[in-house]
Amino acid sequence: MRRSLWVLALLLAAGGPALAQETPDPAVVAKIEDQAFNHSQVMNIAFYLTDVSGPRLTNSPGYFRAANWVKNTLTDWGLSNATLEPWGDFGSGWELDKSYLALKAPYYQPIMAYPKAWTASTKGLVSGAVVLVDAKDSLALLNYKGKLKGKIVVFPNDDTLAEPFKADAMRYVDTDLAKMQEPLPERRRGNPDSARMAQFRLRGAFARQQAAFLKDEGALMVLSGNTRGKDGTLFVQSWGGNAQNLPAGLTDMVIPIEDLHRIIRLVKAGIPVELEGEVKSHFTDNKGDKQGYDVVGEIPGTDPQLKDQLVMLGGHLDSWHSSTGATDNAAGSAVMLEAVRILKTLDLHPRRTIRIVLWSGEEQGLFGSRGYVKNHFADPTTMDLKPEQPKVSAYYNLDNGSGRVRGVYLQGNEAVRPIFASWLTPFASLDASTLTIRNTGSTDHVSFDAVGIPAFQFIQDPLEYDTRTHHSTADSYDHLSAEDLKQAAAIVATFVYQTAVRDQELPRKPLPEARPAGARPF
Amino acid sequence: MRRSLWVLALLLAAGGPALAQETPDPAVVAKIEDQAFNHSQVMNIAFYLTDVSGPRLTNSPGYFRAANWVKNTLTDWGLSNATLEPWGDFGSGWELDKSYLALKAPYYQPIMAYPKAWTASTKGLVSGAVVLVDAKDSLALLNYKGKLKGKIVVFPNDDTLAEPFKADAMRYVDTDLAKMQEPLPERRRGNPDSARMAQFRLRGAFARQQAAFLKDEGALMVLSGNTRGKDGTLFVQSWGGNAQNLPAGLTDMVIPIEDLHRIIRLVKAGIPVELEGEVKSHFTDNKGDKQGYDVVGEIPGTDPQLKDQLVMLGGHLDSWHSSTGATDNAAGSAVMLEAVRILKTLDLHPRRTIRIVLWSGEEQGLFGSRGYVKNHFADPTTMDLKPEQPKVSAYYNLDNGSGRVRGVYLQGNEAVRPIFASWLTPFASLDASTLTIRNTGSTDHVSFDAVGIPAFQFIQDPLEYDTRTHHSTADSYDHLSAEDLKQAAAIVATFVYQTAVRDQELPRKPLPEARPAGARPF
Repeated sequence: MRRSLWVLALLLAAGGPALAQETPDPAVVAKIEDQAFNHSQVMNIAFYLTDVSGPRLTNSPGYFRAANWVKNTLTDWGLSNATLEPWGDFGSGWELDKSYLALKAPYYQPIMAYPKAWTASTKGLVSGAVVLVDAKDSLALLNYKGKLKGKIVVFPNDDTLAEPFKADAMRYVDTDLAKMQEPLPERRRGNPDSARMAQFRLRGAFARQQAAFLKDEGALMVLSGNTRGKDGTLFVQSWGGNAQNLPAGLTDMVIPIEDLHRIIRLVKAGIPVELEGEVKSHFTDNKGDKQGYDVVGEIPGTDPQLKDQLVMLGGHLDSWHSSTGATDNAAGSAVMLEAVRILKTLDLHPRRTIRIVLWSGEEQGLFGSRGYVKNHFADPTTMDLKPEQPKVSAYYNLDNGSGRVRGVYLQGNEAVRPIFASWLTPFASLDASTLTIRNTGSTDHVSFDAVGIPAFQFIQDPLEYDTRTHHSTADSYDHLSAEDLKQAAAIVATFVYQTAVRDQELPRKPLPEARPAGARPF
Repeated sequence: MRRSLWVLALLLAAGGPALAQETPDPAVVAKIEDQAFNHSQVMNIAFYLTDVSGPRLTNSPGYFRAANWVKNTLTDWGLSNATLEPWGDFGSGWELDKSYLALKAPYYQPIMAYPKAWTASTKGLVSGAVVLVDAKDSLALLNYKGKLKGKIVVFPNDDTLAEPFKADAMRYVDTDLAKMQEPLPERRRGNPDSARMAQFRLRGAFARQQAAFLKDEGALMVLSGNTRGKDGTLFVQSWGGNAQNLPAGLTDMVIPIEDLHRIIRLVKAGIPVELEGEVKSHFTDNKGDKQGYDVVGEIPGTDPQLKDQLVMLGGHLDSWHSSTGATDNAAGSAVMLEAVRILKTLDLHPRRTIRIVLWSGEEQGLFGSRGYVKNHFADPTTMDLKPEQPKVSAYYNLDNGSGRVRGVYLQGNEAVRPIFASWLTPFASLDASTLTIRNTGSTDHVSFDAVGIPAFQFIQDPLEYDTRTHHSTADSYDHLSAEDLKQAAAIVATFVYQTAVRDQELPRKPLPEARPAGARPF
């Protein structure tokens, strides 16, 4: 029923041969949908990426468990050239061996805390009184000189809890999608000397200075919280950046905002607060190798004229560490893997080569995709193109949680609109029909976009991504939506297939200008 | 503006002297509202009950910290006869000294677990493999004989997570309140021999049998979870009942449902799961005294004819132990305390004596109020009335979270409807105007109702009570709503004052029949 309707719609709408060429073959779409919905492996894939692999912090053992599972699985499925490919120097990974925190006075109560990534170990089980450190600058810090030895440091925080009258999860409704289609003024390229950047740098510099001061003064640990993390959900990242730019030696844990507020209220009321805690962690690397690795695999093209051209798809495989990175981004990784499994299983003889790459170092700055793009296609600071750059017809990315696909961000590429509109036609009944000219950022497609390769991120229903799971202790398998992931796999597989069999490569935007080496890249 | 409107409404509506007598004095209400809203102490009281006292499990040190703070505070405010009054034998309290749990294989990750009340200690830090125990009866248990020594037991669980598309918090809207006013068929008194009770007892008996089996077999601990506890919120009680009917010696922890599911998935996939954990706890009592204690205080009546009559108000002070029992029931306790503070501060010369009692043992079966009622007023199994029984005009209770008052459950007492309707008139603009003939149960007013004393629980907006905070790790100070509690204090103070100055006691329902000694009381 659903299929016959869209075929009819296509027949009625078909304006000419150009559009007709873009029309997905209903028989192929039917096979893809049958695989995606009736023979789905997407939750099984997600199980291995999350529950079995564990947290996938870049260069941690969990990341390599997942990456090797992906490599072996791609090989088992019959893909070619499955490998872990180094993209450049990342630095050490990091892994927890022990984490414990509790209130000890005025009474005992365990605190559901989680250490930030790359945080230092304590010297075994330690305990100390809490001191509130309220300093806006290095001068104010001097007030605490000599007062922090053996203490546990908390910063003032009077955030209110996030709104409980609003549901955590949402799906886009028509008005959201319509609003999304209004073009925005193009975002100004980041200017490294702008006031905002300067302020950002100052804040970062003071945070590092403060951390060094606290360490020098002999503080035992620092506790922090944030408002998004209510009800027991913690949002946990690192000090910022990756291991290399962290001051070593200060233990830094995230605690529930409610506990942080409790501690602050007690201290302010003059009631001594004592905590005990233990963090044991170690930096990890791959036998001294501090390179970061992406995972690659291919379905070779079958058209002698086109098989050296590429259709690429991917998402980042690495995660933050306080859960198993289910919606960020086992979801996207599993969908991309499921899409290539479907295409390989169906043996559809793509004309171009299909290459999947799952990235690492995304959470610390899109490092894995930036390194890969620089190695294969172009350095965005020079824009000298390598021979492979013109051969990539498109890169497709998925990294907005577990929600079904509602459409595509065209990333400013108006010429692809009619093509994608045709490709989405079979999926209107699955609620995926929105195309917006807007850019979306913050994930790996921008590494490709920056060197002139057509690169797209899909629009996905947010579900709980922005409220509960993104970088949090709640980002686990149970927060995945199987039906949403199946729909996404069907659509991605179709887009990749269409790109692989199209006569021409996808139209490109004008090549961007080279960007200053010191600029924040995207 | 608000006040002048309701005075006008009263003038227009006043049908005769009977109603006029019930009309709250606008000057008194104005003073009460000024205290409640402009000089509120309710959040400060709540701070001492929650943050400062800690978890208030009955007969634990936290309970006695709070109870003594209440006694001293009532005395400081000038109330009379403030004391801790024993209500009967409870048994030991229980307190945590250490709680830690973590996944150890297939990788390390801390698990945000919380021990059930009265659970046993482990022998220091222990670790063991997880075994799924799937037994419906004692015969099936035998399959596990000899297989559980040094193991950690998990039971199957395939609950799905609670709906994320629905907000945690809600307020009643007009249609909810209208529906609440439709009378329900009177609930049948519990029949101890009913099929449901029999099934309940069978399940309880098997749970105890299973626990004894697991302990005899040498299992290290049992882990459980429940669906309400998603996102890091844990709902933690005890094995059921109080310490006395628990099998000693088995460590039982609640873990996040997502972690429970993860462990079950891994075990079912044949991937060994190992955990490490440590629980240290001890049973507590008050120098060998295992009686439970309520906290009492009075504002003496000033009318020589009526001062030996009582208006009572209260709520339970005890809590479950995994947070600080803010919405259950520091909220209700703080509102009742604030109401007597307001009435004492305003020096309103109540005709009858006002007595506040905060209960213990509520969470294990309304023990504190049942004991108090039996000691002072009547034993519901004989219904022989003590001399004080006829002298209690009313008992008011608050125990439905932090939400503002929307009205009163009349508890089947139709004769009080016009009286309460008049008393609520000033508060229509504060959205409190609903009276329902319905009973509400499960808290301490039913102990009074059972012996024929007019006893009422207020209708409160649920906020997050049913979804997030009730008996959970999220039941902390930050989940209180200050504005709601202020409104509730103003209304409770007015109701108590009106009851204390009314010429007659409140009308009573017919005296209930004596109930069989073995019956579940309410």
